[in-house]
Amino acid sequence: MAKIARRGVMFVLSSPSGAGKTTIARRLLEENKDLVLSISVTTREKRPSEVDGRDYRFIKENDFDRMVARDELLEHAEVFGNHYGTPKDPVEDALASGKNVLFDIDWQGADQLRKAMPDDVVSVFILPPSRKELESRLRRRAEDPDDVVKARMEKASGEIVHWDDYEHVVINENLDAAIREVTGILSGATARRVRQPGLEEFVAKLLEE
Amino acid sequence: MAKIARRGVMFVLSSPSGAGKTTIARRLLEENKDLVLSISVTTREKRPSEVDGRDYRFIKENDFDRMVARDELLEHAEVFGNHYGTPKDPVEDALASGKNVLFDIDWQGADQLRKAMPDDVVSVFILPPSRKELESRLRRRAEDPDDVVKARMEKASGEIVHWDDYEHVVINENLDAAIREVTGILSGATARRVRQPGLEEFVAKLLEE
Repeated sequence: MAKIARRGVMFVLSSPSGAGKTTIARRLLEENKDLVLSISVTTREKRPSEVDGRDYRFIKENDFDRMVARDELLEHAEVFGNHYGTPKDPVEDALASGKNVLFDIDWQGADQLRKAMPDDVVSVFILPPSRKELESRLRRRAEDPDDVVKARMEKASGEIVHWDDYEHVVINENLDAAIREVTGILSGATARRVRQPGLEEFVAKLLEE
Repeated sequence: MAKIARRGVMFVLSSPSGAGKTTIARRLLEENKDLVLSISVTTREKRPSEVDGRDYRFIKENDFDRMVARDELLEHAEVFGNHYGTPKDPVEDALASGKNVLFDIDWQGADQLRKAMPDDVVSVFILPPSRKELESRLRRRAEDPDDVVKARMEKASGEIVHWDDYEHVVINENLDAAIREVTGILSGATARRVRQPGLEEFVAKLLEE
Protein backbone atom coordinates (compact mmCIF):
# COMPACT_ATOMS: atom_id res chain seq x y z
CA MET A 1 0.00 0.00 0.00
CA ALA A 2 1.04 3.54 -0.67
CA LYS A 3 2.23 4.77 2.71
CA ILE A 4 -0.23 7.27 4.10
CA ALA A 5 -0.93 8.32 7.68
CA ARG A 6 -3.59 6.14 9.28
CA ARG A 7 -5.40 6.19 12.59
CA GLY A 8 -6.14 2.76 14.02
CA VAL A 9 -9.51 1.40 15.07
CA MET A 10 -10.58 0.35 18.57
CA PHE A 11 -12.00 -3.03 17.59
CA VAL A 12 -14.43 -4.10 20.29
CA LEU A 13 -15.60 -7.74 20.46
CA SER A 14 -18.31 -8.78 22.89
CA SER A 15 -20.41 -11.91 23.24
CA PRO A 16 -21.90 -14.18 25.84
CA SER A 17 -19.54 -16.81 27.15
CA GLY A 18 -19.88 -19.85 24.89
CA ALA A 19 -20.22 -17.93 21.61
CA GLY A 20 -16.58 -18.38 20.60
CA LYS A 21 -15.32 -14.84 21.11
CA THR A 22 -12.00 -15.82 22.68
CA THR A 23 -11.13 -18.23 19.87
CA ILE A 24 -12.06 -15.63 17.27
CA ALA A 25 -9.97 -12.97 19.06
CA ARG A 26 -6.93 -15.27 19.18
CA ARG A 27 -7.18 -16.09 15.47
CA LEU A 28 -7.62 -12.42 14.56
CA LEU A 29 -4.47 -11.51 16.47
CA GLU A 30 -2.52 -14.31 14.77
CA GLU A 31 -3.66 -13.34 11.29
CA ASN A 32 -3.50 -9.52 11.49
CA LYS A 33 -0.08 -8.13 12.26
CA ASP A 34 -1.49 -4.57 12.52
CA LEU A 35 -3.80 -5.64 15.35
CA VAL A 36 -2.68 -5.58 18.99
CA LEU A 37 -4.54 -6.71 22.10
CA SER A 38 -5.39 -4.14 24.75
CA ILE A 39 -3.88 -5.26 28.07
CA SER A 40 -5.97 -4.37 31.11
CA VAL A 41 -4.67 -3.42 34.52
CA THR A 42 -6.08 -5.32 37.49
CA THR A 43 -5.73 -5.29 41.28
CA ARG A 44 -6.42 -8.99 41.63
CA GLU A 45 -3.73 -11.58 42.43
CA LYS A 46 -1.80 -13.01 39.50
CA ARG A 47 -2.59 -16.67 38.90
CA PRO A 48 0.33 -19.06 38.37
CA SER A 49 -0.48 -19.52 34.67
CA GLU A 50 -0.58 -15.77 34.02
CA VAL A 51 2.23 -13.49 32.84
CA ASP A 52 2.37 -9.86 34.00
CA GLY A 53 2.11 -7.60 30.95
CA ARG A 54 0.73 -10.34 28.73
CA ASP A 55 -2.52 -11.36 30.43
CA TYR A 56 -2.87 -8.27 32.63
CA ARG A 57 -0.73 -5.61 34.17
CA PHE A 58 -1.01 -6.49 37.87
CA ILE A 59 -1.04 -3.33 39.98
CA LYS A 60 -1.69 -2.27 43.57
CA GLU A 61 -5.02 -0.90 44.73
CA ASN A 62 -3.59 2.60 45.36
CA ASP A 63 -2.01 2.71 41.88
CA PHE A 64 -5.39 1.82 40.45
CA ASP A 65 -7.08 4.55 42.48
CA ARG A 66 -4.53 7.06 41.25
CA MET A 67 -5.15 6.07 37.61
CA VAL A 68 -8.88 6.58 38.11
CA ALA A 69 -8.33 9.94 39.82
CA ARG A 70 -6.08 11.12 36.99
CA ASP A 71 -8.56 9.95 34.36
CA GLU A 72 -5.98 7.58 32.91
CA LEU A 73 -8.43 4.74 32.27
CA LEU A 74 -10.79 4.47 29.31
CA GLU A 75 -13.08 2.16 31.25
CA HIS A 76 -13.00 0.34 34.54
CA ALA A 77 -15.11 -2.07 36.58
CA GLU A 78 -15.18 -3.94 39.85
CA VAL A 79 -15.73 -7.71 39.80
CA PHE A 80 -15.83 -9.72 43.06
CA GLY A 81 -14.01 -6.91 44.87
CA ASN A 82 -11.18 -6.68 42.32
CA HIS A 83 -10.66 -3.74 39.99
CA TYR A 84 -10.03 -3.94 36.25
CA GLY A 85 -9.39 -1.14 33.81
CA THR A 86 -8.08 -0.15 30.36
CA PRO A 87 -5.20 2.35 30.41
CA LYS A 88 -5.65 5.19 27.92
CA ASP A 89 -2.04 5.91 26.89
CA PRO A 90 -1.09 2.59 25.22
CA VAL A 91 -4.35 2.67 23.25
CA GLU A 92 -3.83 6.25 22.11
CA ASP A 93 -0.21 5.49 21.12
CA ALA A 94 -1.25 2.44 19.09
CA LEU A 95 -4.07 4.27 17.31
CA ALA A 96 -1.84 7.23 16.48
CA SER A 97 0.73 4.90 14.92
CA GLY A 98 -1.96 3.31 12.73
CA LYS A 99 -2.31 0.07 14.70
CA ASN A 100 -5.73 -1.38 15.46
CA VAL A 101 -6.42 -2.36 19.07
CA LEU A 102 -8.56 -5.37 19.99
CA PHE A 103 -10.79 -5.31 23.06
CA ASP A 104 -12.27 -8.56 24.35
CA ILE A 105 -14.78 -6.97 26.69
CA ASP A 106 -18.33 -7.18 28.04
CA TRP A 107 -21.21 -4.87 27.14
CA GLN A 108 -20.56 -2.54 30.07
CA GLY A 109 -16.92 -2.07 29.13
CA ALA A 110 -17.90 -1.61 25.48
CA ASP A 111 -20.36 1.06 26.55
CA GLN A 112 -17.69 2.99 28.44
CA LEU A 113 -15.22 2.71 25.55
CA ARG A 114 -17.82 4.10 23.12
CA LYS A 115 -18.45 7.04 25.42
CA ALA A 116 -14.73 7.70 25.94
CA MET A 117 -13.71 7.39 22.27
CA PRO A 118 -16.85 7.70 20.13
CA ASP A 119 -14.95 8.23 16.86
CA ASP A 120 -12.55 5.32 17.28
CA VAL A 121 -14.71 2.38 18.35
CA VAL A 122 -15.90 -0.21 15.83
CA SER A 123 -17.93 -2.83 17.65
CA VAL A 124 -18.91 -6.42 16.92
CA PHE A 125 -21.27 -8.64 18.88
CA ILE A 126 -20.91 -12.39 18.39
CA LEU A 127 -23.97 -14.59 18.80
CA PRO A 128 -24.24 -18.36 19.12
CA PRO A 129 -26.23 -20.06 16.32
CA SER A 130 -29.01 -21.32 18.61
CA ARG A 131 -30.08 -21.67 22.21
CA LYS A 132 -29.50 -25.40 22.05
CA GLU A 133 -25.93 -24.92 20.82
CA LEU A 134 -25.24 -22.25 23.44
CA GLU A 135 -26.51 -24.55 26.18
CA SER A 136 -24.38 -27.44 24.99
CA ARG A 137 -21.30 -25.18 24.85
CA LEU A 138 -22.02 -23.95 28.38
CA ARG A 139 -22.55 -27.50 29.61
CA ARG A 140 -18.83 -28.03 29.11
CA ARG A 141 -18.64 -31.16 31.18
CA ALA A 142 -21.39 -33.76 31.21
CA GLU A 143 -21.39 -33.81 35.00
CA ASP A 144 -22.30 -30.13 35.43
CA PRO A 145 -25.45 -29.99 37.53
CA ASP A 146 -28.44 -28.42 35.82
CA ASP A 147 -28.54 -25.42 38.15
CA VAL A 148 -24.94 -24.51 37.24
CA VAL A 149 -25.83 -24.64 33.53
CA LYS A 150 -28.97 -22.63 34.25
CA ALA A 151 -26.94 -19.93 36.03
CA ARG A 152 -24.52 -19.77 33.08
CA MET A 153 -27.43 -19.45 30.65
CA GLU A 154 -28.85 -16.60 32.69
CA LYS A 155 -25.51 -14.82 32.65
CA ALA A 156 -25.28 -15.37 28.87
CA SER A 157 -28.79 -14.02 28.39
CA GLY A 158 -27.89 -10.91 30.40
CA GLU A 159 -25.10 -10.24 27.91
CA ILE A 160 -27.13 -11.14 24.79
CA VAL A 161 -29.86 -8.58 25.50
CA HIS A 162 -27.28 -5.87 24.72
CA TRP A 163 -26.68 -7.14 21.15
CA ASP A 164 -28.32 -4.07 19.64
CA ASP A 165 -25.81 -1.62 21.13
CA TYR A 166 -23.34 -2.97 18.55
CA GLU A 167 -22.67 -1.72 15.04
CA HIS A 168 -22.03 -5.23 13.68
CA VAL A 169 -23.44 -8.63 14.59
CA VAL A 170 -21.94 -11.98 13.57
CA ILE A 171 -23.58 -15.33 14.19
CA ASN A 172 -20.90 -17.91 14.94
CA GLU A 173 -22.31 -21.05 13.38
CA ASN A 174 -19.14 -22.01 11.53
CA LEU A 175 -15.91 -20.78 13.13
CA ASP A 176 -13.98 -20.17 9.90
CA ALA A 177 -16.87 -18.28 8.33
CA ALA A 178 -17.27 -16.19 11.48
CA ILE A 179 -13.55 -15.35 11.48
CA ARG A 180 -13.72 -14.36 7.81
CA GLU A 181 -16.68 -12.12 8.58
CA VAL A 182 -15.01 -10.45 11.57
CA THR A 183 -11.80 -10.00 9.54
CA GLY A 184 -13.89 -8.33 6.83
CA ILE A 185 -15.42 -5.96 9.37
CA LEU A 186 -11.94 -4.97 10.59
CA SER A 187 -10.60 -4.54 7.08
CA GLY A 188 -13.65 -2.53 6.02
CA ALA A 189 -13.30 -0.32 9.09
CA THR A 190 -9.65 0.48 8.37
CA ALA A 191 -10.61 1.48 4.80
CA ARG A 192 -12.97 4.18 6.07
CA ARG A 193 -11.95 7.60 4.87
CA VAL A 194 -11.93 9.00 8.41
CA ARG A 195 -9.36 6.37 9.47
CA GLN A 196 -6.92 7.64 6.84
CA PRO A 197 -6.03 11.23 7.76
CA GLY A 198 -3.09 11.04 5.35
CA LEU A 199 -5.44 10.89 2.35
CA GLU A 200 -5.84 14.64 2.17
CA GLU A 201 -2.13 15.13 1.53
CA PHE A 202 -2.02 12.08 -0.76
CA VAL A 203 -4.83 13.40 -2.97
CA ALA A 204 -3.32 16.91 -3.02
CA LYS A 205 -0.14 15.39 -4.48
CA LEU A 206 -2.15 13.34 -6.95
CA LEU A 207 -3.78 16.52 -8.27
CA GLU A 208 -0.59 18.57 -8.35
CA GLU A 209 0.63 19.37 -11.84
CA MET B 1 -24.93 -19.19 8.34
CA ALA B 2 -28.05 -19.31 10.40
CA LYS B 3 -30.78 -18.17 8.03
CA ILE B 4 -32.01 -14.76 9.06
CA ALA B 5 -33.68 -12.01 7.04
CA ARG B 6 -31.14 -9.63 5.52
CA ARG B 7 -31.38 -6.42 3.56
CA GLY B 8 -28.73 -6.03 0.88
CA VAL B 9 -26.33 -3.15 0.47
CA MET B 10 -26.11 -0.73 -2.48
CA PHE B 11 -22.38 -1.03 -3.02
CA VAL B 12 -21.21 2.04 -4.90
CA LEU B 13 -17.76 2.05 -6.56
CA SER B 14 -16.38 5.23 -8.10
CA SER B 15 -12.95 6.22 -9.33
CA PRO B 16 -11.26 8.18 -12.07
CA SER B 17 -10.75 6.24 -15.27
CA GLY B 18 -7.39 4.48 -15.00
CA ALA B 19 -7.66 3.54 -11.31
CA GLY B 20 -8.77 -0.03 -11.96
CA LYS B 21 -12.41 0.21 -10.91
CA THR B 22 -13.79 -1.90 -13.76
CA THR B 23 -11.36 -4.76 -13.11
CA ILE B 24 -12.12 -4.66 -9.39
CA ALA B 25 -15.87 -4.64 -10.09
CA ARG B 26 -15.59 -7.65 -12.39
CA ARG B 27 -13.58 -9.66 -9.86
CA LEU B 28 -15.99 -8.76 -7.05
CA LEU B 29 -18.93 -10.04 -9.10
CA GLU B 30 -17.08 -13.27 -9.91
CA GLU B 31 -16.15 -13.93 -6.30
CA ASN B 32 -19.37 -12.90 -4.49
CA LYS B 33 -22.42 -14.86 -5.48
CA ASP B 34 -24.65 -12.60 -3.36
CA LEU B 35 -23.59 -9.54 -5.37
CA VAL B 36 -25.41 -8.50 -8.56
CA LEU B 37 -24.62 -5.68 -10.96
CA SER B 38 -27.13 -2.89 -11.41
CA ILE B 39 -28.10 -2.67 -15.08
CA SER B 40 -28.79 0.86 -16.30
CA VAL B 41 -31.35 1.88 -18.91
CA THR B 42 -30.13 4.06 -21.76
CA THR B 43 -31.59 5.78 -24.80
CA ARG B 44 -28.40 5.50 -26.85
CA GLU B 45 -27.94 3.04 -29.71
CA LYS B 46 -26.79 -0.45 -28.82
CA ARG B 47 -23.25 -1.17 -30.03
CA PRO B 48 -22.62 -4.48 -31.87
CA SER B 49 -20.63 -5.89 -28.94
CA GLU B 50 -23.36 -5.11 -26.40
CA VAL B 51 -26.17 -7.35 -25.20
CA ASP B 52 -29.53 -5.84 -24.22
CA GLY B 53 -30.19 -6.63 -20.56
CA ARG B 54 -26.56 -7.44 -19.82
CA ASP B 55 -24.71 -4.21 -20.62
CA TYR B 56 -27.74 -1.92 -20.58
CA ARG B 57 -31.45 -2.08 -21.08
CA PHE B 58 -31.84 -0.13 -24.34
CA ILE B 59 -35.07 1.89 -24.31
CA LYS B 60 -36.79 4.60 -26.35
CA GLU B 61 -36.61 8.27 -25.43
CA ASN B 62 -40.33 8.42 -24.55
CA ASP B 63 -40.05 5.35 -22.29
CA PHE B 64 -37.17 7.06 -20.52
CA ASP B 65 -39.19 10.26 -20.11
CA ARG B 66 -42.08 8.26 -18.66
CA MET B 67 -39.75 6.54 -16.13
CA VAL B 68 -38.48 9.95 -15.02
CA ALA B 69 -42.02 11.36 -14.77
CA ARG B 70 -43.12 8.36 -12.66
CA ASP B 71 -40.07 8.64 -10.43
CA GLU B 72 -38.98 5.13 -11.40
CA LEU B 73 -35.26 5.98 -11.59
CA LEU B 74 -32.89 6.23 -8.63
CA GLU B 75 -30.56 8.47 -10.62
CA HIS B 76 -30.22 9.64 -14.20
CA ALA B 77 -27.93 11.72 -16.35
CA GLU B 78 -27.48 12.98 -19.89
CA VAL B 79 -24.17 12.34 -21.66
CA PHE B 80 -23.60 13.59 -25.22
CA GLY B 81 -27.36 13.88 -25.78
CA ASN B 82 -28.12 10.32 -24.57
CA HIS B 83 -29.94 9.49 -21.37
CA TYR B 84 -28.85 6.96 -18.77
CA GLY B 85 -30.60 5.93 -15.58
CA THR B 86 -30.89 3.34 -12.79
CA PRO B 87 -34.34 1.74 -12.46
CA LYS B 88 -35.55 1.57 -8.88
CA ASP B 89 -37.59 -1.66 -8.88
CA PRO B 90 -34.85 -4.23 -9.63
CA VAL B 91 -32.62 -2.64 -6.98
CA GLU B 92 -35.37 -2.66 -4.37
CA ASP B 93 -36.23 -6.30 -5.19
CA ALA B 94 -32.59 -7.38 -4.87
CA LEU B 95 -32.07 -5.54 -1.57
CA ALA B 96 -35.28 -6.96 -0.10
CA SER B 97 -34.16 -10.50 -0.97
CA GLY B 98 -30.82 -9.92 0.78
CA LYS B 99 -28.69 -9.49 -2.35
CA ASN B 100 -26.10 -6.75 -2.56
CA VAL B 101 -26.17 -4.56 -5.67
CA LEU B 102 -22.99 -3.20 -7.27
CA PHE B 103 -22.96 0.24 -8.90
CA ASP B 104 -20.05 1.20 -11.15
CA ILE B 105 -20.87 4.89 -11.30
CA ASP B 106 -19.38 8.41 -11.31
CA TRP B 107 -19.53 10.89 -8.42
CA GLN B 108 -22.69 12.56 -9.70
CA GLY B 109 -24.55 9.25 -9.92
CA ALA B 110 -23.23 8.25 -6.49
CA ASP B 111 -24.50 11.53 -5.10
CA GLN B 112 -28.00 10.93 -6.47
CA LEU B 113 -28.04 7.34 -5.16
CA ARG B 114 -27.07 8.53 -1.67
CA LYS B 115 -29.88 11.07 -1.71
CA ALA B 116 -32.43 8.54 -2.99
CA MET B 117 -31.44 5.68 -0.62
CA PRO B 118 -29.42 7.16 2.25
CA ASP B 119 -29.71 4.06 4.46
CA ASP B 120 -28.70 1.55 1.80
CA VAL B 121 -25.62 3.03 0.14
CA VAL B 122 -22.12 1.94 1.14
CA SER B 123 -19.62 3.81 -1.00
CA VAL B 124 -16.01 3.22 -2.01
CA PHE B 125 -13.70 5.55 -3.91
CA ILE B 126 -10.71 3.94 -5.62
CA LEU B 127 -7.57 6.02 -6.09
CA PRO B 128 -4.51 5.36 -8.23
CA PRO B 129 -1.24 5.00 -6.30
CA SER B 130 0.40 8.08 -7.83
CA ARG B 131 -0.01 10.75 -10.48
CA LYS B 132 2.75 9.17 -12.53
CA GLU B 133 1.03 5.77 -12.47
CA LEU B 134 -2.34 7.34 -13.36
CA GLU B 135 -0.78 9.17 -16.31
CA SER B 136 0.87 6.03 -17.60
CA ARG B 137 -2.41 4.10 -17.29
CA LEU B 138 -4.24 6.87 -19.19
CA ARG B 139 -1.54 6.96 -21.86
CA ARG B 140 -2.80 3.56 -22.95
CA ARG B 141 -1.12 3.60 -26.31
CA ALA B 142 2.32 5.08 -26.85
CA GLU B 143 1.07 7.08 -29.83
CA ASP B 144 -1.55 9.09 -27.88
CA PRO B 145 -0.77 12.76 -28.44
CA ASP B 146 0.04 14.70 -25.29
CA ASP B 147 -3.11 16.85 -25.48
CA VAL B 148 -5.30 13.73 -25.45
CA VAL B 149 -3.51 12.46 -22.33
CA LYS B 150 -3.79 15.92 -20.80
CA ALA B 151 -7.56 15.99 -21.43
CA ARG B 152 -7.89 12.54 -19.83
CA MET B 153 -5.90 13.68 -16.80
CA GLU B 154 -8.16 16.71 -16.43
CA LYS B 155 -11.23 14.49 -16.55
CA ALA B 156 -9.64 12.14 -13.96
CA SER B 157 -8.82 15.09 -11.71
CA GLY B 158 -12.42 16.30 -11.95
CA GLU B 159 -13.52 12.92 -10.56
CA ILE B 160 -10.76 12.65 -7.92
CA VAL B 161 -11.69 15.95 -6.24
CA HIS B 162 -14.89 14.21 -5.05
CA TRP B 163 -13.00 11.49 -3.11
CA ASP B 164 -14.15 12.86 0.22
CA ASP B 165 -17.84 12.31 -0.49
CA TYR B 166 -17.13 8.59 0.01
CA GLU B 167 -17.29 6.54 3.19
CA HIS B 168 -14.34 4.34 2.19
CA VAL B 169 -11.22 5.01 0.16
CA VAL B 170 -8.94 2.34 -1.30
CA ILE B 171 -5.62 3.06 -3.01
CA ASN B 172 -5.14 0.58 -5.84
CA GLU B 173 -1.40 0.02 -5.84
CA ASN B 174 -1.58 -3.77 -5.92
CA LEU B 175 -4.70 -5.17 -7.60
CA ASP B 176 -5.09 -8.27 -5.40
CA ALA B 177 -4.63 -6.24 -2.21
CA ALA B 178 -7.15 -3.67 -3.44
CA ILE B 179 -9.69 -6.43 -4.23
CA ARG B 180 -9.18 -7.96 -0.78
CA GLU B 181 -9.76 -4.56 0.79
CA VAL B 182 -12.92 -3.85 -1.24
CA THR B 183 -14.19 -7.38 -0.48
CA GLY B 184 -13.60 -6.67 3.21
CA ILE B 185 -15.59 -3.45 3.00
CA LEU B 186 -18.50 -5.32 1.41
CA SER B 187 -18.36 -8.13 3.94
CA GLY B 188 -18.12 -5.68 6.84
CA ALA B 189 -21.08 -3.73 5.47
CA THR B 190 -23.29 -6.82 5.26
CA ALA B 191 -22.44 -7.64 8.90
CA ARG B 192 -23.86 -4.32 10.12
CA ARG B 193 -26.71 -4.84 12.52
CA VAL B 194 -29.02 -2.60 10.47
CA ARG B 195 -28.53 -4.84 7.40
CA GLN B 196 -29.90 -7.84 9.33
CA PRO B 197 -33.53 -7.07 10.19
CA GLY B 198 -34.01 -10.76 11.02
CA LEU B 199 -31.75 -10.49 14.06
CA GLU B 200 -34.50 -9.21 16.31
CA GLU B 201 -36.51 -12.39 15.84
CA PHE B 202 -33.38 -14.55 15.99
CA VAL B 203 -32.31 -13.08 19.35
CA ALA B 204 -35.84 -13.34 20.73
CA LYS B 205 -35.72 -17.10 20.02
CA LEU B 206 -32.26 -17.35 21.55
CA LEU B 207 -33.58 -15.85 24.78
CA GLU B 208 -36.76 -17.90 24.85
CA GLU B 209 -36.85 -20.49 27.61
